[in-house]
Amino acid sequence: MTSDTVPSEFLSFAQALADASGQVIQRYFRQPIDIITKADLSPVTIADRNTEEAMRSLINKRFPQHGIIGEEHGAEKADAEYVWVLDPIDGTKSFISGRPLFGTLIALCRKGRPVLGVIDHPAIHERWIGALGHPTLFQGKPVKVRPCPDLAQATLFASSPEMFDEEDQPRYLKLRRACKMSVYGSDCYHYGIIASGFGDVAIEANMGIYDYLALVPVVEGAGGIVSDWQGRPLTIESDDKVLACGDARAHAQVLKLIA
Amino acid sequence: MTSDTVPSEFLSFAQALADASGQVIQRYFRQPIDIITKADLSPVTIADRNTEEAMRSLINKRFPQHGIIGEEHGAEKADAEYVWVLDPIDGTKSFISGRPLFGTLIALCRKGRPVLGVIDHPAIHERWIGALGHPTLFQGKPVKVRPCPDLAQATLFASSPEMFDEEDQPRYLKLRRACKMSVYGSDCYHYGIIASGFGDVAIEANMGIYDYLALVPVVEGAGGIVSDWQGRPLTIESDDKVLACGDARAHAQVLKLIA
Repeated sequence: MTSDTVPSEFLSFAQALADASGQVIQRYFRQPIDIITKADLSPVTIADRNTEEAMRSLINKRFPQHGIIGEEHGAEKADAEYVWVLDPIDGTKSFISGRPLFGTLIALCRKGRPVLGVIDHPAIHERWIGALGHPTLFQGKPVKVRPCPDLAQATLFASSPEMFDEEDQPRYLKLRRACKMSVYGSDCYHYGIIASGFGDVAIEANMGIYDYLALVPVVEGAGGIVSDWQGRPLTIESDDKVLACGDARAHAQVLKLIA
Repeated sequence: MTSDTVPSEFLSFAQALADASGQVIQRYFRQPIDIITKADLSPVTIADRNTEEAMRSLINKRFPQHGIIGEEHGAEKADAEYVWVLDPIDGTKSFISGRPLFGTLIALCRKGRPVLGVIDHPAIHERWIGALGHPTLFQGKPVKVRPCPDLAQATLFASSPEMFDEEDQPRYLKLRRACKMSVYGSDCYHYGIIASGFGDVAIEANMGIYDYLALVPVVEGAGGIVSDWQGRPLTIESDDKVLACGDARAHAQVLKLIA
């Protein structure tokens, strides 16, 4: 155990957070609920808001000195050593369409760096959890990325090819053509797929810190690599672009292609 | 019960077929298996082939006079009054990527017209079944499409926006711009979503009869409408383009847009 190793009490607490959020979400999934359109035109529901509140209340009770940044209810103590970053429902479009691949994303950052992440899919009872100094677990069992020495054999994931703006679109298309196949519409699920060794590259843009910080420990704890589009590690202050690969060789090839 | 009503014995047999196919598929899902690239460049696995064989053997035993057309093992008695049309794994790309939205499609055609359909998702234990003269069931309970009088409020589904060829792409984009939002990557799951009233329009091209015949009774038994891109009913001899809508008003609007 190095000094970077995340204490086990944080891992079990993160699991408890995911259990609690899943219980709230299950009450709303595939039920008629109002959809509110936010300022950025993305949809949100009472399920998002209540789920985040449930997690916030647990964190405040157990770790009152920790900070929290949530997609729906903003920041508190954001300059604390430990800060939880919460996206109650990543993939709200899926959630409101009755598609079970949406997920809850829970990250714990230490000094701005993600050290623990949970990708939880309550509708199908699937969960990945990763943390510094621990192997990434899927359903409680360790998982590993697969080798992908060459992009020509890569399965590529993105939420949607429509998520890239005018400047990024040609870079995405270049990557798309270099890969063997593309799969869209997995929300955060595809980062779990990469950690479990069934996919190779995920690339996305216009992401918030809620959308990507939790992915980093999950993918990296399985042997993969996550960065921005310049190859820099993702922190609480990164920009909106994410690249995750199971194999560092594929990662290097993508960085060259989209430079 | 009209003369068109599908006898209950066919419904319970179709459920048994889906149970059997699911059992075979579960043995292979997320296991290391060889991926074969077919002549049309689509991937296939031993799971596809063995699943179809299991269903064929059950049909031949129970209804030896019925025909069978399967994606992997071809046609037998294709001119019989009743013909089963089987796609063991619709969404092979999902299947080999460990994504649980792939499904088994089972259609029964009478005189070339689909009268019964099953959309089964063995990895998440979800099943829609529809048949002439019966309400469409999801997990054993009747489901209904939702109203969508205007495309501007529609959720649009396609497997991938990359599935349309040069001629169809502009028609797709016109439709995409007319709808409220798009969701990709659901394989056959999105037809179930429309039947269950959580989505409005699905449009696809380059489909085989295996890919679309089973959807027709599922969507129509929930109150929706399925046709080709000219608005004609889908039969065993239709072309490769499919349009499914929950609301006939949305269907009419799409047909005008893509004409």
